[in-house]
Amino acid sequence: MNIVLSRDGQVRVMEDTVAHAEKHFGQFCSLLAAYTRRTARLRDKADQLVRQLFAFANTEGPGLRASVKDFAEDLAKVQDYRQAEVERLENKVVNPLKLYGAHIKQTRAEIKKLKRAQNNEIKQLQKLEKLRQKSPSDRQMISQAETSVQRASADASRTTRQLEEAVGAFQRQKLKDLQKIFSDFVTIEMVFHAKAVEVYSGAFQTLENYHPEQDLQDFTAKMQGLYGHHAARPRAGSDPSPPVPWLPTSQSAESAAQRQRAEEEEEASEDGSVDEAPVEDLRGQGLQT
Amino acid sequence: MNIVLSRDGQVRVMEDTVAHAEKHFGQFCSLLAAYTRRTARLRDKADQLVRQLFAFANTEGPGLRASVKDFAEDLAKVQDYRQAEVERLENKVVNPLKLYGAHIKQTRAEIKKLKRAQNNEIKQLQKLEKLRQKSPSDRQMISQAETSVQRASADASRTTRQLEEAVGAFQRQKLKDLQKIFSDFVTIEMVFHAKAVEVYSGAFQTLENYHPEQDLQDFTAKMQGLYGHHAARPRAGSDPSPPVPWLPTSQSAESAAQRQRAEEEEEASEDGSVDEAPVEDLRGQGLQT
Repeated sequence: MNIVLSRDGQVRVMEDTVAHAEKHFGQFCSLLAAYTRRTARLRDKADQLVRQLFAFANTEGPGLRASVKDFAEDLAKVQDYRQAEVERLENKVVNPLKLYGAHIKQTRAEIKKLKRAQNNEIKQLQKLEKLRQKSPSDRQMISQAETSVQRASADASRTTRQLEEAVGAFQRQKLKDLQKIFSDFVTIEMVFHAKAVEVYSGAFQTLENYHPEQDLQDFTAKMQGLYGHHAARPRAGSDPSPPVPWLPTSQSAESAAQRQRAEEEEEASEDGSVDEAPVEDLRGQGLQT
Repeated sequence: MNIVLSRDGQVRVMEDTVAHAEKHFGQFCSLLAAYTRRTARLRDKADQLVRQLFAFANTEGPGLRASVKDFAEDLAKVQDYRQAEVERLENKVVNPLKLYGAHIKQTRAEIKKLKRAQNNEIKQLQKLEKLRQKSPSDRQMISQAETSVQRASADASRTTRQLEEAVGAFQRQKLKDLQKIFSDFVTIEMVFHAKAVEVYSGAFQTLENYHPEQDLQDFTAKMQGLYGHHAARPRAGSDPSPPVPWLPTSQSAESAAQRQRAEEEEEASEDGSVDEAPVEDLRGQGLQT
């Protein structure tokens, strides 16, 4: 029975190899799918910020408006790259890990075949043993049983060799695939981060180049302009300039609609999300800490 | 009443300026806080992946074990940088936006003071008007009322000038703060992405340098070694090598405990999270698509 015990141990090694791969690939698949989903949710939130920046820019003076719009466009570009990151993670990392279900199923089926061949070998050996005890003198019956044992043994040996090859190939594929999948993960992340650095460098320059002086002069002129325009006693230096488009009174209709739209989008995209706090309330002491 | 109407319009401009800032800063604060939270949740998921990689590495052959551990360490480094990103976003972006509640409260209080001065001016003017209609010949009373109007007007004028300065300063601070906050956001993101590129470049090299041949030879030797060791008919080329530490049978106790620990941590950190799918099931056709 030595060879049978040995094959039994070998089957256990093979089963463990497949079970081990199934367990770990399943966990990697699950974690990397969750990592990808959370990246997508970060992109969603940044997209909301982009919309909010555009809505805000339309209510501000020309200098800040241009700077905020440029910044919002750069932030949107980073989210486009993040979207590409998400798609590539799904295609080149999560999906290949999911496909392991098929590999594992196939290898399991081959292991079952070996187990059947093994069981047949054991059955034939037990038959022969019984025969030798019950009818030790029945040479013909014993010879037939010995032939059956030899046939079953040969079958089990052949199946074992086939399975060794199959499990070896499975393991080889596993190591190569892991290397490929993790390398792809690193490449995808690296490309995204490199693009983000590039875009944010431009955004930083845009923001650095903003000088609020002109916007402030416009604001002061508008504030004092209203005063000076109607006042019985105009103050020195007051300059009733033409209406500046960003003052709340003159822009209410158009940009209120835009803000409304942005808010509706925001609410819609929050629908599936239970983890977000409500909009911060800055009024008085109602600060969220 | 011309000057009174003009001041009334001016107060509306000021109130709109403050309400506009309150609305938009509140929204930015809310969105950037959510962006920071989602970044933290991405870090959490990557941390789980790091633990899972370490647990897995301990069950693999020496070559893959070393490569996977190096990769896991690099991935952990990126999460450390992400943690720094989260903390800096909280300190330099979210918190300054929250502090706007105080600025806004103070400016609102100054606007209220102007409104009181305005209302007093209107009251005195109405008193004078009434007196002129009722007792046009009572020069002394009219003269007294005129003095009260002048005093109230002077008070309203002074308050208006003070408020113009206060609202101008508020607007100046708003523009400068926005520029600072968005620049800080961009800098924080840029630093994180640059560090990630650096670390992932190293990780890519680590994974490229892995060659699975030795691990595969060990695996084959172990698989056939068990066979050859016990077999009545050892196969040519079979080599009963000493037990390799990563084979499931020899590593079960130690690494199973590690895996268990990793899973417990995973479950614990999933507690607060309702958006994650359960662990992928790779068995048979039970694939999640």
